[in-house]
Amino acid sequence: VNKPERTVIGLHSGTSADGPTAVAVRVSGAQESTRIKVLACREYKYQSPLRERIFDLFTRESSTVDRLAQANMAIGEWFAESAKRIAATAGLRLDEVDLIASSGQVIYQVIEGQRPEHRWLGDKAITSFVDMASAAVIAERTGVTTVSNLRQRDIAAGGLGVPTVTYGDWVLFRDEQHNRSIQNIGGIANPTVIPAGADLDAVFAFDSGPGNMVIDGLIDAMTAGRLAYDEGGATAARGHVHQGLVDELMAHPFIQQAPPKGAARQLFGKHYALQVLQRGYDLGLSDSDILASATAFTAESIAFAYRRFVFPRVSLDEVFVAGGGARNATMMSMLRERLAPIPVATIEALGIPVEAREVLTMVVMANDTVQGYPGNVPRATGARRRVICGDITPGLDG
Amino acid sequence: VNKPERTVIGLHSGTSADGPTAVAVRVSGAQESTRIKVLACREYKYQSPLRERIFDLFTRESSTVDRLAQANMAIGEWFAESAKRIAATAGLRLDEVDLIASSGQVIYQVIEGQRPEHRWLGDKAITSFVDMASAAVIAERTGVTTVSNLRQRDIAAGGLGVPTVTYGDWVLFRDEQHNRSIQNIGGIANPTVIPAGADLDAVFAFDSGPGNMVIDGLIDAMTAGRLAYDEGGATAARGHVHQGLVDELMAHPFIQQAPPKGAARQLFGKHYALQVLQRGYDLGLSDSDILASATAFTAESIAFAYRRFVFPRVSLDEVFVAGGGARNATMMSMLRERLAPIPVATIEALGIPVEAREVLTMVVMANDTVQGYPGNVPRATGARRRVICGDITPGLDG
Repeated sequence: VNKPERTVIGLHSGTSADGPTAVAVRVSGAQESTRIKVLACREYKYQSPLRERIFDLFTRESSTVDRLAQANMAIGEWFAESAKRIAATAGLRLDEVDLIASSGQVIYQVIEGQRPEHRWLGDKAITSFVDMASAAVIAERTGVTTVSNLRQRDIAAGGLGVPTVTYGDWVLFRDEQHNRSIQNIGGIANPTVIPAGADLDAVFAFDSGPGNMVIDGLIDAMTAGRLAYDEGGATAARGHVHQGLVDELMAHPFIQQAPPKGAARQLFGKHYALQVLQRGYDLGLSDSDILASATAFTAESIAFAYRRFVFPRVSLDEVFVAGGGARNATMMSMLRERLAPIPVATIEALGIPVEAREVLTMVVMANDTVQGYPGNVPRATGARRRVICGDITPGLDG
Repeated sequence: VNKPERTVIGLHSGTSADGPTAVAVRVSGAQESTRIKVLACREYKYQSPLRERIFDLFTRESSTVDRLAQANMAIGEWFAESAKRIAATAGLRLDEVDLIASSGQVIYQVIEGQRPEHRWLGDKAITSFVDMASAAVIAERTGVTTVSNLRQRDIAAGGLGVPTVTYGDWVLFRDEQHNRSIQNIGGIANPTVIPAGADLDAVFAFDSGPGNMVIDGLIDAMTAGRLAYDEGGATAARGHVHQGLVDELMAHPFIQQAPPKGAARQLFGKHYALQVLQRGYDLGLSDSDILASATAFTAESIAFAYRRFVFPRVSLDEVFVAGGGARNATMMSMLRERLAPIPVATIEALGIPVEAREVLTMVVMANDTVQGYPGNVPRATGARRRVICGDITPGLDG
């Protein structure tokens, strides 16, 4: 178990369900002394019909047990194939890989008290989380020991299981001199705030609200599925922000709610995007105006989270943006405006591809799991204690 | 990892969803040299509303992702509680327990080609299996390392994942002198055939068809839910078998199909029982006649499996019945009649409580999993190779 250096593959597919981001890395050490070197990073997009079928699973009515059971296997096959491809890309044989860290495809989240229709067993919904990609399939196809189900133990300990990235962010990005925030803009947006030289107890993180999700949902609806995202923020850049619409959207209770908090995908999903679209049309706005407003809403909801929940606790020196939102120039410039004078850069300034940061934090967790160390951050998730995260599925030789 | 003796708790709840059967045992050795001593065995019945809600999960339309996510946690809590109770019953502190083997609550099975409505992703349904009881919850509440998801790896290797008991049956019950069958009659019925002095390759097992499931479904419908099973087979004993109805039921394609085969719960579930009931009424039969006929059908389908699929391969010396069906005197006598002159006893003749045998086989598997040994039987499940079964969720200290 305790090797000085491990070769690890990381796999993660978030709420936008594009397919796994895969990394091959060399990892040494554990906990705060973990060091990571990225050998390769790629995204292996789901193909049809798997991607469409995964979206079936995001809506409770069409997300039934027979489909979930089959999707677990099919996504597992795709993750296994992705592990093989990233190994080949990095020039590795599978028998040179010590560990696969798979956080799976995020499918569904139930949060106590958040949606009344989830109430089913007892007085209130039970906080729970579904991600999937059969670890048995991954371990069987690759022969490599696989750590999966990274969020379950934190939830068992009273947490939300999310944000999952906090521990890895602290390990990889804490700095002795600067108060930093790592701002993820994936489907959902979340800051990880790491004061200079912070102990883990001083780190905090939460979901601020939507990331690219509302923008992606709008573009998809406006183009009848032809476009999946607003590339570079170009369409939003052509529109005008309708501040009244932004103000209305900012009234969403999730955005106003104090941390710890985690946003279920369903909260800002397709249904929500369609409501925004309709409201924009009712206000007489064009498609690009609606997109500009949704982008401004997203940037504003992130900035609001800093003003309301971060700045009262720590004065930030720098913000590094990771995730697909870092490639949306309109979003980046709206965020810079709102957070000025604090410098806002992408995480590439720290030598990490914007797509790699999330999955790297899963690699850090899994590397600690197999060494018997905890990987959650109670302050971020609300858990009662630090716990060892994930299930270990033996590889070829146990 | 390699201790000379382990204290292990086993937990399993099968297709009848009564609640986990729990055992506390001492285990020494591994593989064929495994020795088990039962310290305590109890059944911890689910309470309302959990039990009713679990039945929601057996029907695809009402088995949605939000419910499955919550059930996983709630069942996990009940399993954790059951682990604590069986430890206390055996006079053990939890920190004296080395391992929990949990095969979870069986929820749903999808088998390639078996039900057209399962087709969803690609040309045919993907063989898959859902059992649940969050291992993270069990490990968190007890602090004990937990092995779960015992069927997934066999399925990943091309098997059905069931029967799951075969390996443990071979380890625990093989005999140097006698050709034995261990005949389970739980919700589903399945023989494990173990020739005298057999290597694992010579063992075979399969689902023969319904166990108590049709009888239980009938009683439930006839008494509007007041009775869950025909205690001792008393009601069936008062009726007369209608051979025409038995012959009709015997025509079921699953019963005629050659092994390897596994019967999904849904195949002989509530819907099927209601069809049998209606057919019985159409034939002018009384409730007790219908139950007698269903009991005869169950016994006959088991005996048919022996005549057609077992005797051509091995001449049996003895049959030991395990599971709740062993307590149904009418079933036992119908089975003895049909298998004469082969002696049919309950497994208590081998010193094992009839309720304990299934969960003991899971304990054997998990005990081998943590030592790096495989626990499936390709000849029984159809898998391509022997694989290490289950995921390992670390306890308190990893």
